Amino acid sequence: MNTRVFAYDTTLRDGSQAQGISFSVEDKLKIVRKLDELGIAYIEAGNPGSNPKDLEFFQRLPEIKLRQARITAFGSTCKVGADPAQDSQVASLLSVDTPAVAIFGKTWDYHVTAILRTTQKENLRMIRDTIAYVKTKGREVVFDAEHFFDGYKANPDYAFKALAAAVEGGADCLVLCDTNGGSFPDEIYDITQKAVESFPGTQIGIHCHNDCELAVANSVRAVQAGVTHVQGTINGIGERCGNANLCAIIPNLQLKLKYDVIPTENLTRLTPVARFVSEIANIEFNDKAAYVGGDAFTHKGGMHIDAVKKNPVSYEHIPPEAVGNERKVLMSEVAGRSTILGRINQIDPSLTKDSPETRAIINRLKELEHAGYQFESAESSFELLVRKMLGKFKPSFELTDFKVIVSEPSPHGANSSAMIKIRVEGEDEITAAEGDGPVNALDKALRRALYRFYPELREMKLTDYKVRVLDSYSASAAKVRVLIESADSSGSWTTIGVSNDVIEASWRALVDAIEYKLAKAREEN
Amino acid sequence: MNTRVFAYDTTLRDGSQAQGISFSVEDKLKIVRKLDELGIAYIEAGNPGSNPKDLEFFQRLPEIKLRQARITAFGSTCKVGADPAQDSQVASLLSVDTPAVAIFGKTWDYHVTAILRTTQKENLRMIRDTIAYVKTKGREVVFDAEHFFDGYKANPDYAFKALAAAVEGGADCLVLCDTNGGSFPDEIYDITQKAVESFPGTQIGIHCHNDCELAVANSVRAVQAGVTHVQGTINGIGERCGNANLCAIIPNLQLKLKYDVIPTENLTRLTPVARFVSEIANIEFNDKAAYVGGDAFTHKGGMHIDAVKKNPVSYEHIPPEAVGNERKVLMSEVAGRSTILGRINQIDPSLTKDSPETRAIINRLKELEHAGYQFESAESSFELLVRKMLGKFKPSFELTDFKVIVSEPSPHGANSSAMIKIRVEGEDEITAAEGDGPVNALDKALRRALYRFYPELREMKLTDYKVRVLDSYSASAAKVRVLIESADSSGSWTTIGVSNDVIEASWRALVDAIEYKLAKAREEN
Repeated sequence: MNTRVFAYDTTLRDGSQAQGISFSVEDKLKIVRKLDELGIAYIEAGNPGSNPKDLEFFQRLPEIKLRQARITAFGSTCKVGADPAQDSQVASLLSVDTPAVAIFGKTWDYHVTAILRTTQKENLRMIRDTIAYVKTKGREVVFDAEHFFDGYKANPDYAFKALAAAVEGGADCLVLCDTNGGSFPDEIYDITQKAVESFPGTQIGIHCHNDCELAVANSVRAVQAGVTHVQGTINGIGERCGNANLCAIIPNLQLKLKYDVIPTENLTRLTPVARFVSEIANIEFNDKAAYVGGDAFTHKGGMHIDAVKKNPVSYEHIPPEAVGNERKVLMSEVAGRSTILGRINQIDPSLTKDSPETRAIINRLKELEHAGYQFESAESSFELLVRKMLGKFKPSFELTDFKVIVSEPSPHGANSSAMIKIRVEGEDEITAAEGDGPVNALDKALRRALYRFYPELREMKLTDYKVRVLDSYSASAAKVRVLIESADSSGSWTTIGVSNDVIEASWRALVDAIEYKLAKAREEN
Repeated sequence: MNTRVFAYDTTLRDGSQAQGISFSVEDKLKIVRKLDELGIAYIEAGNPGSNPKDLEFFQRLPEIKLRQARITAFGSTCKVGADPAQDSQVASLLSVDTPAVAIFGKTWDYHVTAILRTTQKENLRMIRDTIAYVKTKGREVVFDAEHFFDGYKANPDYAFKALAAAVEGGADCLVLCDTNGGSFPDEIYDITQKAVESFPGTQIGIHCHNDCELAVANSVRAVQAGVTHVQGTINGIGERCGNANLCAIIPNLQLKLKYDVIPTENLTRLTPVARFVSEIANIEFNDKAAYVGGDAFTHKGGMHIDAVKKNPVSYEHIPPEAVGNERKVLMSEVAGRSTILGRINQIDPSLTKDSPETRAIINRLKELEHAGYQFESAESSFELLVRKMLGKFKPSFELTDFKVIVSEPSPHGANSSAMIKIRVEGEDEITAAEGDGPVNALDKALRRALYRFYPELREMKLTDYKVRVLDSYSASAAKVRVLIESADSSGSWTTIGVSNDVIEASWRALVDAIEYKLAKAREEN
């Protein structure tokens, strides 16, 4: 029987303090559902009294049928000198029906006198009385001991008195917070161990921040010192350098140290949940992230690739499937010919690494990489490139010309229109379309022109469109890289275009997307 | 006297294994110069025999007058059964004149038999003989003990025999590598301590990877266990989840644990170097990075901002200036009225937080944030917004209309042309311009139209242009956010535009950039 450690997610509360993060009520509800499915034990979701959005969220929460997670409202102790039963902030915290409530309080003597501007004794009363009052309402109470480690380093006696006040008030869990993120794994271990030993009847938890890039290590060391409650956020989002990253802590504890954090069968949900939260939060997903990142099991160096092919354990610390991730092997200069050859052989199995065709493809690849192309994430464009260079590609249409016009003020709703003339097997087609912006207009016009010849394009959709400025110093004439993801009922594919002009780059990626779809359709027939 | 720890940077070698990273010779030379100025003791720069680019780099290296760094060439032991003096890879490693050479060899018995496919004894010979041969050439030899921790866990006796073989060969430093990044701080500490105790006459080093998000902690713990040589990369770039991040390790060791890593006065170069390498590598800078990130000392929550204003130590673990970074205080929903009011008061000191104007501005700010605006990084657009709402803004020009035409194939060099008509104090001006892409054409045409009225615009330059797709699921009709950074001789400013159309979004940011410049010029006169 492994030891149970309770995962406590604060993505929606502390995580939402990060620069650029702002969750709608709808976003929050979606994330709660995902975290519950993942098996997160506690979801800290905000303070119903802090703003109307959080209040609406708590009111709509019953829409979701939770499997197991306990929703937690977050607030502070009562004000200096106040009776918790009369304190408006405490009242708002209790105004919604959550099974658990987190109360944070000061444990660093400096903060008590300099920031709260009260006496050490009054601060202890505020902690004790607030928790006692919330307990009378039948809630589970988590006490967040703010700045506990800094407080302990400054005045260990007072920091422990604050914990003791929380225990006297009836707190169910004491969470030791490294609020400023400045503590080190050895300190965290030693101080946490003292707390665990001093309050044997009470659950102890940990809450770390990543200001020294040590939050995951600190959380893991705290568990090794005896805590059974770990706070963090998905992808480590949070103020400044972020909170402790649950997407690394959970597999570290569960796969490596054999604690029970979430149901084992749910571990494969970790990568999808990480991507989901990143999308909802509208922040770029960190492909370098441990366990869940797109590059976490990506091999590029030729020697590494050879060894991984022999046995993945040679350069992988866990099987990627364990956390719902996957292995990738990249093409590029460094990847060496054998990897690229593997891809080429999917199209022409007769070629070897010394064939002149192979060399020509590798040279062209290098030229294009130099010009800003990155085929690592646009394998469909790479496949088309190989087909073209091997004479195994017949374009489905020729562009005669297009013209895109953007007008301001816009005469109708859409401010852009595109006119396009193409030729398919000797037949001309000319069409036009309006759109939101030039790329959208061009995309619509091109499809409209092609539907007559290739009705199968109707089932293809553009599902993602990304623009990356490559050399932003050239300002508005900068080179841009466009990645387009398309999908049909059988799967998705990504294509690329690079140009000084966003429309031209988009056009190239668009043409590749369509050609790839048509090549695929021809093969299936 | 603090203990000296030698920083060993492998950004140009192991770092360049990362997906999407490819340094030109020029890039490498620039980075070497910066690392030397920062005070990095060793710079591992590649293998002169691995490709022509690395060879050219080593040949051009004498162009740089290094202050103190020792350049290191990196390669492996000789081949199975080979005499190092006859081994072509070893020869290529010695073909360039570097003061130090890093030789990596196997220490995990599994890798010896399954990947190298040789005997344990032969592997020890390869290590010993290769190092001994390189030592006869007068080089300092760093032995990279590949997979040392995995090797130790599988067969501690053999892992230590491999280290002993390196010592017999004359290695100056034994670097314990957590190649797969799967080890934990407590294991690293215990195993490293054993190595330090077993080879008292030899320097011991550490080389970690971030697959468990523990690389910084592992490196720090290894130093605490006695190593005096730490390998890593700038910003932690590297294969998979990256290498150990020197930008966190150096300040952790130097500011917190009081080791001497780089000259103290150079610590302020850390943030600029991190940004520089990110730009050269053409990867997005991680604003959440510990110490050096743009958000590392950014405060958003109202309560935190109030406390930081009272005393920064309340929510900052170090003063940001110590590492060349700076404090930021953000405006936003969460930041609360007092922060926003501070900005408003710079324009109208008479307003209070209860003034109807303040409320109107906050409401408008919320609407715009909801629509995708982010004034956190575009303070000049925010300032213009406030001026507009307070009636303190007079537009410098009115747009009558513009038309942008993009043609393919492009009739001349530039594929885009813009025609614009504006009105300044009753006078019309109509101009046109061609450009690389529609935004560039529009930018040029607008400036050309305005120069007659506002010659001071000639000294203004667009220095950065960023496009961010906000809801990429709408594909080519997705909403985009454009940030434009402009500069003149007295400073730089950033403006923002949001729209479904990249041209419209760019137009808005462009107009703000120009209006801000003109407002500034008026104030100076």
